[in-house]
Amino acid sequence: MTMLRIPGKFDPNYWVSALHRLDPGLKIDVWPDVKDNHAIQFATVWSYPSGELLKYPNLKCISSLGAGVDHIFNDSARPPGVPIVRIVDKNLVRDMSQYIIWAVLNHTRALDEYRRSQARSLWTPRALKSLPQIGIMGLGQLGADAAIKLHNLGFSVSGWSNTPKNIPGITCFAGDKQQNAFLNQTDVLICLLPLTSQTRHILNRKTFSQLKKGAYLINVARGGHLLEEDLLAALDNHTLSGACLDVFNTEPLPSTHPFWQHPAIKITPHISSVTDPTSAVNQIFENYRRALAGEPLLNRVDVERGY
Amino acid sequence: MTMLRIPGKFDPNYWVSALHRLDPGLKIDVWPDVKDNHAIQFATVWSYPSGELLKYPNLKCISSLGAGVDHIFNDSARPPGVPIVRIVDKNLVRDMSQYIIWAVLNHTRALDEYRRSQARSLWTPRALKSLPQIGIMGLGQLGADAAIKLHNLGFSVSGWSNTPKNIPGITCFAGDKQQNAFLNQTDVLICLLPLTSQTRHILNRKTFSQLKKGAYLINVARGGHLLEEDLLAALDNHTLSGACLDVFNTEPLPSTHPFWQHPAIKITPHISSVTDPTSAVNQIFENYRRALAGEPLLNRVDVERGY
Repeated sequence: MTMLRIPGKFDPNYWVSALHRLDPGLKIDVWPDVKDNHAIQFATVWSYPSGELLKYPNLKCISSLGAGVDHIFNDSARPPGVPIVRIVDKNLVRDMSQYIIWAVLNHTRALDEYRRSQARSLWTPRALKSLPQIGIMGLGQLGADAAIKLHNLGFSVSGWSNTPKNIPGITCFAGDKQQNAFLNQTDVLICLLPLTSQTRHILNRKTFSQLKKGAYLINVARGGHLLEEDLLAALDNHTLSGACLDVFNTEPLPSTHPFWQHPAIKITPHISSVTDPTSAVNQIFENYRRALAGEPLLNRVDVERGY
Repeated sequence: MTMLRIPGKFDPNYWVSALHRLDPGLKIDVWPDVKDNHAIQFATVWSYPSGELLKYPNLKCISSLGAGVDHIFNDSARPPGVPIVRIVDKNLVRDMSQYIIWAVLNHTRALDEYRRSQARSLWTPRALKSLPQIGIMGLGQLGADAAIKLHNLGFSVSGWSNTPKNIPGITCFAGDKQQNAFLNQTDVLICLLPLTSQTRHILNRKTFSQLKKGAYLINVARGGHLLEEDLLAALDNHTLSGACLDVFNTEPLPSTHPFWQHPAIKITPHISSVTDPTSAVNQIFENYRRALAGEPLLNRVDVERGY
C-alpha cells in the first residue's frame, strides 16, 4: 500500500520523515516519481496539475496539506466520488489567531506610527483612540477562535457567516440579508471565509463602501477573496485607511506588484498560519489508516458546499 | 472643600472637565494656582517638586494619576501619615496586556523581519520557531492579567514575584531563592514590577546572563528597573537578541540617546498603558468622597512595601 505525496510549499523530505516516524514501513512515493499508479491509495496534496489524480484508479482519499481545499476544488478533472479531507489542527487555529491579534493591535495601537517616530528619534505619544468594532467574515473554527480571543482582550467583536452561529459574547450576523448590517458597524474587517464561487471577490468596492469610513482590512483567507484593484481604489479615496494582507491572487506576490510598496498596505508572505508537519502528520496518518480500513474519515469536506 | 490638581502628562483641563461632569460644584485648584493652602484636602499628582505637599496642612489623601506611585515615594519630604492611593483601572490592565501581547507576537512571529522584506519587495516565508517560554517579573494585577492572556493564546508562561502567587496555568516562582530558576527557563522576559529600592536596576548584566541565550526583553514597568549600559552590552555580546522598551530613565528619551537608533531596540513613548481620564476619574472622585467622609480608601498603597 502506498501513499502519494505531491510536494507543496515545504520540503517533501520533511513530511516523509515525519510519516516514517509514525510507521517506518510506510511506502511513500513523492510525485512525480511514482512507481506504480495502481498502488496509490491515498494522496496528500497542495497545488498540483489538473487531472493528475485521475491517473490513480485505486485512490481512496485526497488529503489537503492545509486547512484550505480550494486548490483541490480548482481541479475540475478530479476523480469523482473520492472523499476529500483537510487538516484541522489546533496549532493552525492558535497560530492564525495570534497573527490576527497582532495585526489588529499593530493597527489599533498605532505601532507603525511609533516605529516611524523611532526612525526619526521622535518621542510622540498620542492618546488612545476608542477601541474599534471588529468584524470577522467567516465563523468556522478559525473565525470563532479569533472572535473569542479578541473579545477576551477587550474588543467588541461581531461576525458574519453563511449559516447562523451562536458564540457567547460575539454579535453574530448571517446570510446575504444581514451582510449590510454587519459591514455597516465594522471598523476592522477580517476575512476568514473559505474560498468558494460565492465568496470569490467578496472583498470588493461595494463591500468596502458599506464599512465604517476609514475601516481597516485584514485578509488571511485566500487571495481570491479580494478584488485587488478595488482595494487600491478604496485606499486612494480613503474608504479604507489601510490593509494587512497575508494571501494573494498570485503567490509569491510578484516583485513588481503595486501592493509591495504601497504605504497603507502591510504584507506578509502567507505565514499567518502554516501547517506544522509534526502536528498535522498524525491526522494524515490516521486518515490513511481509516481510508484503507473503510472507516469514517476525519475532517471530511462537504463537496457540495465546497468547504 | 478643594481638590488640588498637579498637572501630569495630560492637559489638566481634560481632568478638571471630567471631574466637573461628576460634580459641577467641585472646587479644583490646578497647581501652582492655589488660592488657599488650608482648603486643600485631596491631591491628585503625577511628578511634582519634592516637599510641595508639605504646604497643605489639611491634606487627607494623595492620589497618583496612574497605576505607579514611585513618583510619590521619590518625594522624601512628603507629609507623614497621609494615605496614598493609586489608580487600578480595568482599562489600564486591558491596554497593558494588549501592548505586551503585541510586543511578544511582533518578536516571536518575526514581523519586523517581514516588514524589512516588504521594503525590498521580497517574499521570504520562514518556518515558525517553536513557541518561546514567557517569563513575567511581577504578578500583580497587570502581570497576572498578561500571564493569563498569553497562556490563553497558546504560550507557556511563568512568573516571578516577591510573595508566592497561585495562578492557574502559570508556573509561579517567588522570592530571591527562585529567581535564578525562573530566569534560567525564560526566552522572553517581561518586566512589570513596581519600582522600589529592591527592584531598581533589577534588569542588569547578571539577570540577562541567567536568561536563555538570545532572550528578548520587554520593559513596560519603569525606566529605573533597567541598567541601560548593561542592556547595550548584552545586545552587543548577543546575551540578548533584542528589546522592546516603553519606559526610560529619562522621559522623553533624549533625541541623542543610543537606544533610538539601535537596530535591536524597539521604542515606544510610554504608551503601553495610559490612564484614561474618563475612566479613572470615577475612582479619583470616589476616593475624594471617602477621604472627606473618613471611609476606607480604594486601592490604598502600602507605604512600608512601597507599592
